[in-house]
Amino acid sequence: MAERILNIGLIGAGRMGNLHAENLARRIPRARLHSVADVNEQAARLCASLYGECDCVSDPLQMLDDPQLDAVVLCSATNTHSQIIQDVARAGKHIFCEKPIALNLPDTDAALAAVQRAGVKLQLGFNRRFDATFRRVYDARASGEIGEPHLLHIISRDPAPPPLAYVKTSGGIFLDMTIHDFDMARYLVGAEVEQVYARANVLIDSRIGEAGDYDTAMVMLTFANGALGTIENSRQAVYGYDQRVELLGSRGGVSTENHYPNEVTISHGQFVQRDLPLNFFLERYTTSYLQEMNAFVNAILNDTPVPVSGDDGRMALVLGLAAKKSVAENRPVRVNEIA
Amino acid sequence: MAERILNIGLIGAGRMGNLHAENLARRIPRARLHSVADVNEQAARLCASLYGECDCVSDPLQMLDDPQLDAVVLCSATNTHSQIIQDVARAGKHIFCEKPIALNLPDTDAALAAVQRAGVKLQLGFNRRFDATFRRVYDARASGEIGEPHLLHIISRDPAPPPLAYVKTSGGIFLDMTIHDFDMARYLVGAEVEQVYARANVLIDSRIGEAGDYDTAMVMLTFANGALGTIENSRQAVYGYDQRVELLGSRGGVSTENHYPNEVTISHGQFVQRDLPLNFFLERYTTSYLQEMNAFVNAILNDTPVPVSGDDGRMALVLGLAAKKSVAENRPVRVNEIA
Amino acid sequence: MAERILNIGLIGAGRMGNLHAENLARRIPRARLHSVADVNEQAARLCASLYGECDCVSDPLQMLDDPQLDAVVLCSATNTHSQIIQDVARAGKHIFCEKPIALNLPDTDAALAAVQRAGVKLQLGFNRRFDATFRRVYDARASGEIGEPHLLHIISRDPAPPPLAYVKTSGGIFLDMTIHDFDMARYLVGAEVEQVYARANVLIDSRIGEAGDYDTAMVMLTFANGALGTIENSRQAVYGYDQRVELLGSRGGVSTENHYPNEVTISHGQFVQRDLPLNFFLERYTTSYLQEMNAFVNAILNDTPVPVSGDDGRMALVLGLAAKKSVAENRPVRVNEIA
Amino acid sequence: MAERILNIGLIGAGRMGNLHAENLARRIPRARLHSVADVNEQAARLCASLYGECDCVSDPLQMLDDPQLDAVVLCSATNTHSQIIQDVARAGKHIFCEKPIALNLPDTDAALAAVQRAGVKLQLGFNRRFDATFRRVYDARASGEIGEPHLLHIISRDPAPPPLAYVKTSGGIFLDMTIHDFDMARYLVGAEVEQVYARANVLIDSRIGEAGDYDTAMVMLTFANGALGTIENSRQAVYGYDQRVELLGSRGGVSTENHYPNEVTISHGQFVQRDLPLNFFLERYTTSYLQEMNAFVNAILNDTPVPVSGDDGRMALVLGLAAKKSVAENRPVRVNEIA
Repeated sequence: MAERILNIGLIGAGRMGNLHAENLARRIPRARLHSVADVNEQAARLCASLYGECDCVSDPLQMLDDPQLDAVVLCSATNTHSQIIQDVARAGKHIFCEKPIALNLPDTDAALAAVQRAGVKLQLGFNRRFDATFRRVYDARASGEIGEPHLLHIISRDPAPPPLAYVKTSGGIFLDMTIHDFDMARYLVGAEVEQVYARANVLIDSRIGEAGDYDTAMVMLTFANGALGTIENSRQAVYGYDQRVELLGSRGGVSTENHYPNEVTISHGQFVQRDLPLNFFLERYTTSYLQEMNAFVNAILNDTPVPVSGDDGRMALVLGLAAKKSVAENRPVRVNEIA
Repeated sequence: MAERILNIGLIGAGRMGNLHAENLARRIPRARLHSVADVNEQAARLCASLYGECDCVSDPLQMLDDPQLDAVVLCSATNTHSQIIQDVARAGKHIFCEKPIALNLPDTDAALAAVQRAGVKLQLGFNRRFDATFRRVYDARASGEIGEPHLLHIISRDPAPPPLAYVKTSGGIFLDMTIHDFDMARYLVGAEVEQVYARANVLIDSRIGEAGDYDTAMVMLTFANGALGTIENSRQAVYGYDQRVELLGSRGGVSTENHYPNEVTISHGQFVQRDLPLNFFLERYTTSYLQEMNAFVNAILNDTPVPVSGDDGRMALVLGLAAKKSVAENRPVRVNEIA
Repeated sequence: MAERILNIGLIGAGRMGNLHAENLARRIPRARLHSVADVNEQAARLCASLYGECDCVSDPLQMLDDPQLDAVVLCSATNTHSQIIQDVARAGKHIFCEKPIALNLPDTDAALAAVQRAGVKLQLGFNRRFDATFRRVYDARASGEIGEPHLLHIISRDPAPPPLAYVKTSGGIFLDMTIHDFDMARYLVGAEVEQVYARANVLIDSRIGEAGDYDTAMVMLTFANGALGTIENSRQAVYGYDQRVELLGSRGGVSTENHYPNEVTISHGQFVQRDLPLNFFLERYTTSYLQEMNAFVNAILNDTPVPVSGDDGRMALVLGLAAKKSVAENRPVRVNEIA
Repeated sequence: MAERILNIGLIGAGRMGNLHAENLARRIPRARLHSVADVNEQAARLCASLYGECDCVSDPLQMLDDPQLDAVVLCSATNTHSQIIQDVARAGKHIFCEKPIALNLPDTDAALAAVQRAGVKLQLGFNRRFDATFRRVYDARASGEIGEPHLLHIISRDPAPPPLAYVKTSGGIFLDMTIHDFDMARYLVGAEVEQVYARANVLIDSRIGEAGDYDTAMVMLTFANGALGTIENSRQAVYGYDQRVELLGSRGGVSTENHYPNEVTISHGQFVQRDLPLNFFLERYTTSYLQEMNAFVNAILNDTPVPVSGDDGRMALVLGLAAKKSVAENRPVRVNEIA
């Protein structure tokens, strides 16, 4: 008997959509790209021809009628996520959704409720959980190798600020950028956050401030198990994408280094140097994007729980909203004030 | 004409006193140990015989009458510092004082006022400023090499908690341990702290909590120049003394590694490993203790300003008091609430 | 007009054959697997079904008649390479050949002559030239970044000896293992080797000695440009695959580190440690295998020279034969004694 | 009862002489500088005044009559070593001699015979044995931590060539520079060398060649226990003093890094960089010079064997002579051809 192959529809054929489409088409044997939808029909057609020999539509609702479709990968604009999730869930298809579900709690909760009602699976795109380096940190804590977690530090810096147009619709640094780090914090420490205190400034580009956002931020987290954590964010580390964590436990500590394009050190008359780290998320997290999609496909094929749930997505949003409130009011904010 | 040699009296012949005495006697050519005072006469005698062929007394006041005495190195118990500083200043001698001046502001201010009136020099024992690694971070910021400072992170962890008896009189983790990091923060960022938010827990030894202190802490600092910083402290990093900083600037970032007893990596069948870092402050900061004393001696001989002032000592105390208040009240505390 | 797609036949569907087949089928858009040949028909069929929906044959000669076939990837047993290269060249197809062409010069020269006569391209499988780390070393020398090359050191150690059966037919450590390093030496230094001196011992497994081979070797190379080099080989580095080089030039030096599965350092009470490096060539050189095949496909499609020529393959063999002779006679052997 | 203090006479008050004098005077409690001799009386006087309040003489023979003198530290020109050792031995004083004893075997053997006859101790100045990093490599092998030694690689590069005048009297690169590495090789592998093959070139400064010497060299060593080793030397690594070793054993491998002035990494927009390693031997080996002298003083006070014997000095010379012969004749030279 032939192995079952998962038919997946892609909604949103932008940069992330194409990345997932290529992984599905070329590197995940038990899945195939079945249909592509994008409001930009040309983008949908191009993606479909590159990775699928599959149907393409401009309205995602069209693809949902297809009984052969098993699941949807949702990479459209954030403000469409909640409604589409509800539609897809109602059609009984499983969903992989790029983070975040929404920029507010009501839309998030509406989506989660629909998923719950429909009994479909929803996996959030927190790809860093699938990165070998961060996974090793997780394992060091989860296995007891470093004992109970005490102090967490997350460094998360982009090589350069996004376009101003993006900044204006992003929901702000805490919902757009730190949201990944909030998820990492819960994942690595293995406990829920109880309180958030955040400070943020505009130190890189005043136009980011004029757009109502910050480019430099620090967050302090208090965890339910007594651990303390900080996250530091910058929209501009001139040397590239800087993604590291440290976790001190009762029986040891663990730290990480960035990933580099090569393992070469050159010594001149002035300095000992190496090339800059991998520049941005597409280079740095290539493998993790493949792994997360593999995990999604396997969870459906084996009917096992997805590794990153809708609640994980919701909690990261809650922490982001708490951070925004904390900065606005310059006081620690308890998570249950938000959620 | 012979070079002038500085005659120095040591008050307090404990561990730090002996360390300074040895440096003065053997490694600083233009200084010599002139007299030693300790309430424990035997300790004073032993130190004097090891490093000086010099007088020893039990009451520090006795040595102050000696017109040949130029300066005093003060390593007695913290609660004696303020009164002795006042006595020494009144006698017109210069003072090197181990941190902190006192555990409260009135005693600190009384000491500083006496120093001011007497016109003598007072240098505080913030030795880390003289460490080659932290000095290089300072230089990278002060020279403009990394541009304007944006984000600071200080990791400061002891290998094991101090004795409980010590904990009880130490003034608490923020005044005893973090006080060094508060000074580092001001030194490395090159700006004053405006606000402190701190969280602390007892995760290592419940008896530390019973003694009214914490063993695990995080502090977030807001600087006057817009920079943000965090300090993380643990009384127990099982792998040894962990002293590192990171500073992100507008034009680059700088980070540090611990210092190790050797530069050897061993690869077995299980792991690639190296020996643990230098275990504690005496090993890690050996050279910085020598450099700070050299700087003190030179400042007197050349009548130039000391590199770490009484105000530096006072400000570190203020930050420590702000951190204590912040933890107690779970809110950010502005520095001018304290000072 | 549609882009031209290169039709490639695979000869030898073993481990390396499957690796190349997967790259051709899934990761090189302008090539496709057209046919598969293996004396083991089942292996051919499996490979064809996994990566091609393509024909499969047991006799490689069968696939050569197909006018649609553009090129052949040759991964069969070494002792079949020379004859097959001659057959393929006569059929006018381009050839990618796993190293070595043969274990002796007459067979090698017969193959090269046939390629020359037929005017087809022949690329040798020295994949390390395509590794990002070694490529960066090459660039540092070729660009003049480190000036003229003076001293080369190559470390090349396997995690464990191959099966004894393999040892017996491998041609010995110099033709099987060092041959890659000989090619690296020429590539990195950018000059020909004039003299070889080698020493070898049996220190790991006496059965390797009984099979007439060595498990531990060192080679000293004298280059035409005055540079000196050493290669050190071991069949067993218990911590894994160890592949590093160093090159000192007149204006700087360059060194490399191994590649690791993650960038995590864990500090326990005993050691600071990280996980072992990537274990063997399939993990370590994954990307380089893809890059070399891409380069081969592009060289044919664009009718440009292949980046690793038949002469490169021949010269590595010559150096291996010189090393064998040097060990046997315990004297430096000039390359022109062999070639 | 007072502890016995060792009275030491210094012969040769140049750079190394002053270094040893300062260590004896200031950092080795149970020794003191008793007298100083130098053909340059002013140099002797300066050294005596700085470190001793001790006698100074121009003729070393003068100091030998003093019954209070226990031992001599010999730092005069190499060509005076053998005769002075014989004189000192005859006077019944112990000897610490900077390497090498002599540049030829007859003078070396004459000195060793005199030491033997007199029953005094002779320690050679192979300071690297006392360096914490190389000592750790030694321990990893001697303790069995990495099993039996198989492959050794020593990198030893100076930051810049010595003055030409020095080159002419140095005995050549193998007797002047590699001699330290020959000693390291025997020390780290724990076995004698049986055969030497060396190649050398003039790649840095043609005047070094005109003076009859080389500036770039590689040596291959065959050890009695089957291990193989290489030493690579350059008179000019533009980034500084480069001193590293690697040792592969049957149960693990060990490698070392250079020592740096700080543990700081700076990331700019172009590179990730750190400052150059410690520039030369005085900075790199500061502590090892102190440790070797401590070991000498302790060996005398406790009447235990010195840790680096006259035979160690002789064997390093033998290996250097073998390397010279090997280069001259371009063939491997067995050590017993020389010794």
